[in-house]
Amino acid sequence: MELLFGLFLMFAAAKFAAEVFERIRQPAVVGEILAGVLIGPHVLGWVAASDASHLLSELGVVFLMFSVGLATRPAQIFEVGATSISVATLGVILPLAAGYALMRTPPFAAGVSSIQALFVGTAMVATSVGITARTLASLGQLGSASARIILGAAVIDDVLGLLVLAAVSSAAKGSINLPELAVLALLAILFVAFMALLAAPVLTRFAHYANRLRSDNAEFSLAIALCLGAAAIAVKIGFAGIIGAFLAGMALAEAAGQRHDLHAQMKGATELLVPFFLVDIGLQLDPGLFSDASTLWLVLALIAVAAVSKLAGCGLGAFRLGRRGALQVGAGMIPRGEVGIVVAQLGLSLGVIDARLFGAVLVMACATTLITPPLLRPLYGAARNLRPDD
Amino acid sequence: MELLFGLFLMFAAAKFAAEVFERIRQPAVVGEILAGVLIGPHVLGWVAASDASHLLSELGVVFLMFSVGLATRPAQIFEVGATSISVATLGVILPLAAGYALMRTPPFAAGVSSIQALFVGTAMVATSVGITARTLASLGQLGSASARIILGAAVIDDVLGLLVLAAVSSAAKGSINLPELAVLALLAILFVAFMALLAAPVLTRFAHYANRLRSDNAEFSLAIALCLGAAAIAVKIGFAGIIGAFLAGMALAEAAGQRHDLHAQMKGATELLVPFFLVDIGLQLDPGLFSDASTLWLVLALIAVAAVSKLAGCGLGAFRLGRRGALQVGAGMIPRGEVGIVVAQLGLSLGVIDARLFGAVLVMACATTLITPPLLRPLYGAARNLRPDD
Repeated sequence: MELLFGLFLMFAAAKFAAEVFERIRQPAVVGEILAGVLIGPHVLGWVAASDASHLLSELGVVFLMFSVGLATRPAQIFEVGATSISVATLGVILPLAAGYALMRTPPFAAGVSSIQALFVGTAMVATSVGITARTLASLGQLGSASARIILGAAVIDDVLGLLVLAAVSSAAKGSINLPELAVLALLAILFVAFMALLAAPVLTRFAHYANRLRSDNAEFSLAIALCLGAAAIAVKIGFAGIIGAFLAGMALAEAAGQRHDLHAQMKGATELLVPFFLVDIGLQLDPGLFSDASTLWLVLALIAVAAVSKLAGCGLGAFRLGRRGALQVGAGMIPRGEVGIVVAQLGLSLGVIDARLFGAVLVMACATTLITPPLLRPLYGAARNLRPDD
Repeated sequence: MELLFGLFLMFAAAKFAAEVFERIRQPAVVGEILAGVLIGPHVLGWVAASDASHLLSELGVVFLMFSVGLATRPAQIFEVGATSISVATLGVILPLAAGYALMRTPPFAAGVSSIQALFVGTAMVATSVGITARTLASLGQLGSASARIILGAAVIDDVLGLLVLAAVSSAAKGSINLPELAVLALLAILFVAFMALLAAPVLTRFAHYANRLRSDNAEFSLAIALCLGAAAIAVKIGFAGIIGAFLAGMALAEAAGQRHDLHAQMKGATELLVPFFLVDIGLQLDPGLFSDASTLWLVLALIAVAAVSKLAGCGLGAFRLGRRGALQVGAGMIPRGEVGIVVAQLGLSLGVIDARLFGAVLVMACATTLITPPLLRPLYGAARNLRPDD
């Protein structure tokens, strides 16, 4: 029964750190991971990762990706302009290639297999624009052309990123085999297409039948069942559960619409479990790794490549906006945040990457999130509009 | 990763059964337990109880009791009239004594220790008036004098029931030792008094400081941390975690008040986890047990004693209302529902009661809930007011 005390420590530490990070205007996600590092076995030693923390962490990331999906309406993917599509596509290809190339280049290539290099590239793909959206909102720039392109591209980018992850993580389970990889990519595209083109309209069309159900909070129960079911199916096909959860959320996004109670209840489930995901990641991170000079160089190289490849790829995709607009879009797409962290965690749990690569990718995901706001502000030339609470 | 499929099956089966039971106008809780029996190892064999189901079940019951506490304002305990107090007190003493006496009487006493008999008595103590409240609401009788006495008594009854449970479950860990039991009862009273008289006003007084926190959903995070923290403290003192969770909920009830989002988010966390608690109980129940005649007699005796002792105790406490009013109050207090189930589950996990007694107590808790609505309707003579959706 010491279980409850451990869970209390993990949750309270995460939320305390989140509050501190909000106050120093840094992303709460980074604070919650650092809380895990702090109370974990390598620093204070108060809690260790356990079966319980792993289970809650796994459920937490499934619900996190379901929530990300719920905020992604499939219709948006077809609505956004050609610029968003080219921004997203180039912003996926360049980081994937650059991440792979970096890990195949000496001195970083030492002891790194091609599947490991591919995984690092994959972790560089998906953008997590939460921090960008918040920065632009505080600058009063959410309505600008570049902001709309960033938000549209982020949606497509998420879907492309998950396609890449689906293919790479399946490949990671066997050896790389091109025809097999092609079949898997096809399967991934079919799964995405099924959820976006078939499941979503069907759910939207028949959502009102949920009102006829007699049990309390029936809508919420259906949403949870859909999320767990789609995650389980994804696992059966050979993908990560989070991919099914994301697609289930996306399929439900239109039907869920403005149902306030459903969103509040989902928020409750997510807010309860996600801290365990973030703390569990921190528990597995040994800060001592970074005392090694070669690891430190690897981390710095990863951060630089992640930032430059996204800036170049997305900037190129948005060249029509002119130099300043292209730079705004490129910089806005730099943060990897949660999705990059999810990929790192998945790689570790699949045994594809080791603790050192896991730590390096994790730091890259956090660092790209930390550097974005100070990059964006001067690009929008809005320093004079800065409010103290931005 | 078969984990997600098992969790999906448990959740979906529970919610499907809940919907079916709502439609045949029976308590959803009973349906969710039966879903667990059905998919469990003794019937269909689709899922078995696992570390994962136990963890989610334990968290589920902690949040369930926290929610029960959130609906219990300590002020109500001091407001309700003398009748509610006498109803609650006699309604605790008689069932406890009757349950204990039954289990010490041949033929039921065979192989039953005095601590086991005490546990059965304890499982008969706490009323779960949800089903009564719903029945009275459908009869349009929630405003009646007897209804107000029932709801007031149910609050005191919960607190008294948890005091008894705290003392008995601590005693169950060692041998029964009267001075030690007295110390524990005192400790339980102090813990309840501390939470109700000190923590509650302090939380109510300083609740508005939560508005100053910067992190998202800070109120919800504080509530969860308080729940887990109080549950962990209860365990450290030597009580069940659910007692701390209930008291934390009660201490927060006034401060939480009408904060709609906090309640919706708590609902999300609870609705996600409680089905695992109920299904996990079903998974542990072997329906084959009841093919044994002696077990069947035990179950019937338990149900009869549970119903009659509550009817008599609470009716006696409400004698001022006249015969009809006393019967209304007595019948309204019969359902044991969730709290009785929680006690049975705790007894099983402490190793105090075996699978046979666990099953018998569980059936008693469910049966008292099932028989109450048909008992109440004629007592309120309101059959003609019955709406089809009662």
